[in-house]
Amino acid sequence: MITLYSMPSSGNSYKVRLLLAKLGLPFRHVAAEAGSGVTQSPEFLARNPKGKVPLLELEDGRLLSESNAILLFLGDGTRYVPQGHYTRALVHSWMFWEQNAHEPSIAVRSAILTYEDRAHLRRPDVLDPLLEQGHRALQVMETQLRETLFLAGEVLTVADLCLYGYTHSAGAKGGFDMARFPEVERWLERVEADPGHVPITWLGDW
Amino acid sequence: MITLYSMPSSGNSYKVRLLLAKLGLPFRHVAAEAGSGVTQSPEFLARNPKGKVPLLELEDGRLLSESNAILLFLGDGTRYVPQGHYTRALVHSWMFWEQNAHEPSIAVRSAILTYEDRAHLRRPDVLDPLLEQGHRALQVMETQLRETLFLAGEVLTVADLCLYGYTHSAGAKGGFDMARFPEVERWLERVEADPGHVPITWLGDW
Repeated sequence: MITLYSMPSSGNSYKVRLLLAKLGLPFRHVAAEAGSGVTQSPEFLARNPKGKVPLLELEDGRLLSESNAILLFLGDGTRYVPQGHYTRALVHSWMFWEQNAHEPSIAVRSAILTYEDRAHLRRPDVLDPLLEQGHRALQVMETQLRETLFLAGEVLTVADLCLYGYTHSAGAKGGFDMARFPEVERWLERVEADPGHVPITWLGDW
Repeated sequence: MITLYSMPSSGNSYKVRLLLAKLGLPFRHVAAEAGSGVTQSPEFLARNPKGKVPLLELEDGRLLSESNAILLFLGDGTRYVPQGHYTRALVHSWMFWEQNAHEPSIAVRSAILTYEDRAHLRRPDVLDPLLEQGHRALQVMETQLRETLFLAGEVLTVADLCLYGYTHSAGAKGGFDMARFPEVERWLERVEADPGHVPITWLGDW
């Protein structure tokens, strides 16, 4: 059986659990919540020198880090990763953009407002630019979702699961003004209506 | 013929030009240097609402943004993108990590020290954390390159071209202490020795 090291409250980890649920793929879950010290243990660092989750461990011991690489790996050959050369490139494009423009604003602001060890960063000079960057990222999604039902076209792909990871809680956890992005809100509902959806609290307990 | 909108001095743009050179693929180059206003023109924003380069335009007008998505798209089916499922996943993993951990520290610090419109950011409270984060990223590469000749194994892939984009100038432009990372320095030489290498100044003038 595969093993997933994941942080229960993290969107990057949630993305992977969400795809595993949709694929009906059994896995052993090792929780690495923030502050638990799991990712800084010598055993974990030997597996991933970056000290980060999610981390996937295959049955034969091979390891794979980076949430979006795990999504593409597990989703390959399923309906979540398109076969068409150009459509797959659009999926990749959204996923790279997520790691460079969306996660660093939306996930980072949400984390500052959520975790007590980041309370010292709750200052306007930190929070205000993150709010503006996050709204800019949400506007990029809004513009696309005026044109297509899902980010890379008319069907749900790993790009949607990827972006759902932090967008679904951007309002509640990050303080972003979701009312400004009605197409994004409708897209959130479409992702949730896709078969096999699970909430972030689901850790593989089947 | 394909068209590449790219910024001559940018590592993200350079990555794509480097692969195009190696593939011997002719392209029309549209320069969008910082401060030129090209990426903020209505014509460009209609093509890419994110207002960023590199942007690839195919012969039939289809568009693709995000440097690493372009590398995977153009490299698919060539020696630069491995066919093996797991090895390709390792390539993806390095490329996502680059956008989330390497580019935001190494490229951002280099840009602040290079472009005059960012001179106001040349303050220790901005530059010092970026130096530390960049050194941490370089250490992750160093650790891998003690084990393998290239980032995803024993052969050069798009993951290496991707990471080469900003690492090759991290010392000169970003002020990072490359002497601390001898394996990274040897890897830079290996990437440069691979057939078809071109410097960042090459804009497709064949």
